[in-house]
Amino acid sequence: MKVDWVAADWGSTNLRCWAMSESDKILDFAHSDRGMKSIVATGGDFESALLDLIRPWLEPGRKMPVAACGMVGAKQGWIEAPYSVAPCSPTTQRYQAPTHSHEIEVWIHGGIQQPKPADVMRGEETQIAGLLAEGPDYEGLVCLPGTHTKWVTVSQGKIQRFRTYLTGEVFALLSEQSVLKLTLASEGWDRAAFLEGFQSTLERPETLLSECFGLRAEALLNDLEGVVARSRLSGFLLGHEISGVTKEGPKIEAVTLVAADSLMEIYEAALDSIWIYVRTFSTESAILGGLAKGRNT
Amino acid sequence: MKVDWVAADWGSTNLRCWAMSESDKILDFAHSDRGMKSIVATGGDFESALLDLIRPWLEPGRKMPVAACGMVGAKQGWIEAPYSVAPCSPTTQRYQAPTHSHEIEVWIHGGIQQPKPADVMRGEETQIAGLLAEGPDYEGLVCLPGTHTKWVTVSQGKIQRFRTYLTGEVFALLSEQSVLKLTLASEGWDRAAFLEGFQSTLERPETLLSECFGLRAEALLNDLEGVVARSRLSGFLLGHEISGVTKEGPKIEAVTLVAADSLMEIYEAALDSIWIYVRTFSTESAILGGLAKGRNT
Repeated sequence: MKVDWVAADWGSTNLRCWAMSESDKILDFAHSDRGMKSIVATGGDFESALLDLIRPWLEPGRKMPVAACGMVGAKQGWIEAPYSVAPCSPTTQRYQAPTHSHEIEVWIHGGIQQPKPADVMRGEETQIAGLLAEGPDYEGLVCLPGTHTKWVTVSQGKIQRFRTYLTGEVFALLSEQSVLKLTLASEGWDRAAFLEGFQSTLERPETLLSECFGLRAEALLNDLEGVVARSRLSGFLLGHEISGVTKEGPKIEAVTLVAADSLMEIYEAALDSIWIYVRTFSTESAILGGLAKGRNT
Repeated sequence: MKVDWVAADWGSTNLRCWAMSESDKILDFAHSDRGMKSIVATGGDFESALLDLIRPWLEPGRKMPVAACGMVGAKQGWIEAPYSVAPCSPTTQRYQAPTHSHEIEVWIHGGIQQPKPADVMRGEETQIAGLLAEGPDYEGLVCLPGTHTKWVTVSQGKIQRFRTYLTGEVFALLSEQSVLKLTLASEGWDRAAFLEGFQSTLERPETLLSECFGLRAEALLNDLEGVVARSRLSGFLLGHEISGVTKEGPKIEAVTLVAADSLMEIYEAALDSIWIYVRTFSTESAILGGLAKGRNT
């Protein structure tokens, strides 16, 4: 195994690294929970966290190039990789992080900001760059679901504008820490219940907070099943989000989803139910394509 | 001081007791953090928690009547005080709790449920009963802000229908446990920023989750001040709630607010800005009036 370079997706909670060949094929994968938050909390040694994970891939006498994106480039990160301002190319400038070791050379992608409405991204721009590396002429809407879901309008090879929704984080807070935690199953998904919830807040987004309490009431009064409650909550939040997206711009015909499997299924079900055509692209391909693109730019 | 009876407001997190005279005047007040949740967590001795607080008011040889409302009557409470079904009188049936001591006699007010849309209340019905004890002919909308804010339609001496909004709980979760906690001041209120946020989600309730993330982005990009961010978040949530309330029924001319001072100010500012006439009533008067009414019914 001859590792040519290392790709790193370094977010708030996780560090994921891929050993890449000269032709950008995956040779190996490693991950740890040393995301930005845990490193900042323990004094900030980004270099050790990285070396601990990728040491098996290094070889004596060679400086291994590492290309990274995500919160590692934030103000509290390894080095602040400044924001480009949208509209701009998703292949942002790269900034070299200071290292003590002579075995690695680390380059971090800058994020993107939007002045009005104020918004920011770190990491998603690299995924969009990966998408455009596959299809340079792509025009349209890209959705990247997650803790902070991004909806991005791409045109003429640029990120034109974007908006972030707190959907995933609110779902986690409500299901784990609110009065609803007694009502919701900790896992499981019921498609019909999800779509019922989705439709109701898509049409009436102003009912989100009352519908949420209604789940608790239905559990008390009608023994609402935990998986149904969980799926309906997920539907309420997604219906609210997509109501916001659809009312913001022209009619949406198609969306490209860049997601991991579980979120892919949920978003596909929602969009499919309202006749929006969905193309899918895996997060991993998007990240690796975007980091490879950054090295060759 | 001759204590005739004890009034108790016994919620999820607090126990508040008033020593009352024969003519229903307040003689003394005591409170503790022995709400239902802490008692359930420590094995469930409701009687001791109550006696610890009100012992100074007891006299030998007399059984002190205690009238209580709130979560103490829930399934996990002292004794389950079943729900009445709306539409119904806010003066619900009272249920006697089992006691070991011969010094007290405890009566707990039942809550109210609504089959469709499914909803429940425990404690607020007693506050409405207190309101109606003052003005038996009251007709209209009553708002009881809190962790789970209730909007109640009162007519012909009955609670006709109601709806609960998770507004307060979501504000607490977002301000204390989400990505916004870095952005928000822990206290303070800016009326102009509040009203700006209120207006935006009142008109566009579908933007709630993107507006929330926007606060974080504005803090990163424009050094948005913590008090402004906190006030705007509060405005976003209230605008969303009141958008739901106004779209649910006929045009609202006036609202009676039953609230403590801090929430009173916020709700008054919001309703005033959209020309809804506000009457105010203190939570304490409402609870004591409702518990007194229950004793005489």
